[in-house]
Order: sequence, then C-alpha cells, then structure tokens
Amino acid sequence: MTPTEIDYPEVLSEMREAFARYETALTTNDVTTLDELFHKHPGTIRYGATENLYGYTAIASFRAGRSSANLMRDLAQTVITSYGRDVAVASTLFTRSSAPGKIGRQMQTWVRFAEGWRIVAAHVSVIDAPA
Amino acid sequence: MTPTEIDYPEVLSEMREAFARYETALTTNDVTTLDELFHKHPGTIRYGATENLYGYTAIASFRAGRSSANLMRDLAQTVITSYGRDVAVASTLFTRSSAPGKIGRQMQTWVRFAEGWRIVAAHVSVIDAPA
Repeated sequence: MTPTEIDYPEVLSEMREAFARYETALTTNDVTTLDELFHKHPGTIRYGATENLYGYTAIASFRAGRSSANLMRDLAQTVITSYGRDVAVASTLFTRSSAPGKIGRQMQTWVRFAEGWRIVAAHVSVIDAPA
Repeated sequence: MTPTEIDYPEVLSEMREAFARYETALTTNDVTTLDELFHKHPGTIRYGATENLYGYTAIASFRAGRSSANLMRDLAQTVITSYGRDVAVASTLFTRSSAPGKIGRQMQTWVRFAEGWRIVAAHVSVIDAPA
C-alpha cells in the first residue's frame, strides 16, 4: 500500500453510503440488513459492549436475541479512512440520551467483496465521558 | 477482494511477527517501537481504555505520558486474519493480574506500507468478565 492510495474519493463515497446503511439498520433493529453487512466467514469478529463474538455465526445469533429497546443514538467525530479500493476503517463516537455521562466508541473494518462492502471486524465499547 | 485472498500463510506469518513485536513493546513500555508501529498519518485512530485519540500525533503524545506500571498481561483467543497481501486484523482478549474479574479486548487493523506493517486503527476496551 502507498500513501497515495489512502482516501480515494470514490471509495470514501461508497463507504459513507455503506456506513449510513449500517447505522440505520442498527438503530431500527433491522437484523436482516445487519446480518447482510457482516462478512459471512469464521474470521469475522465483533467485540460488543458486553460480549465477545468470534465468527459470523456467533454474531448472527447475538443479533437474533438482541433487545430492540433504546437503540437510537447520536454520532460524533465520525472518521472514515480508506486504504486502496477494497479496505476502509470507520470510527465513530456515540451517545445515547438513556446513558448520560457515557461515551460509546465504534470501530469497524470493512472489506469490499464481490457482493459489496462487508464488515470483517468490529469493536464497540462504552466509557465514562471525559470530565 | 475475493475469499481466496484471505489468510495467505506468508502474510499471516509476517503479521504474527509484527503482532508479537508490538506486544513486547507494549508490555515493556518501549515507546520508540510503539510509535514506529503506528502509521504516521492524521487518519490513524486509537480508542484506548479511557481515551479517544485521533491522528498519529495524539497517539504519540499519549504514549509519551503513559505510566509504565502494571503493563504485563496474558493474551487469550488471539486471532489474526489477513485480507490480500497488505491488510490484516489482529484481535485478542487480555487479562491482568492487577485487574481480576475484568477482560480486555484489543482489536487492531494493520496495513503494509513500504516501511513495513503499520497499525492504522486500534481499539482497546475493558469489560467485566462473563460470570
């Protein structure tokens, strides 16, 4: 990879669309779309707010049993950076009115396959907001 | 990217070496090596256990001021998955004897540049260990 391959505008544009689609699916608990957007592979990993999920099957099982309450959230400091034409990282902070004083962090690595952009790794965590 | 480009053995082998080098640098507080292994770019992001660092400069500043106490840790369920020849994700859980009942999660996305494998995104968080 060379530095000139970082942040091709057309790749960022595609990724922004995929990221927005994921966010809508997440906050509306659209499990079908959430499942679609994770890469169906045993190497896909999701560290969630309270759970560590190894492999697509574990992730899909978790989604199926997830509560749909209090999913809406506000994003802040969202940054998408792409590397070449097939890889991007999307990082964002988030807050929920139901969790004052807390700040969430979501980081996803996306890879473009023939079927489209898919999340191959995700990590979500919540910490106390800085004083 | 095609599924056949996942986990080339020679790429995994290189990444395991880079990952081990990072772990040694982290647990010995070898700031020079830690700084070397993060990509020197404003798009590099590190969400740490208690801090959100945007850009290489913020990450290096944090390292310079970091305490070197209680850094040793044990890793578990470490998985490295590579995508093509230039990208890999390394995920691991970790525990520290100084933090019983807690489980750490570290996820890093690495990209190979001319100068070597570099971390372009990292997220570290600590949660209560499952009962």
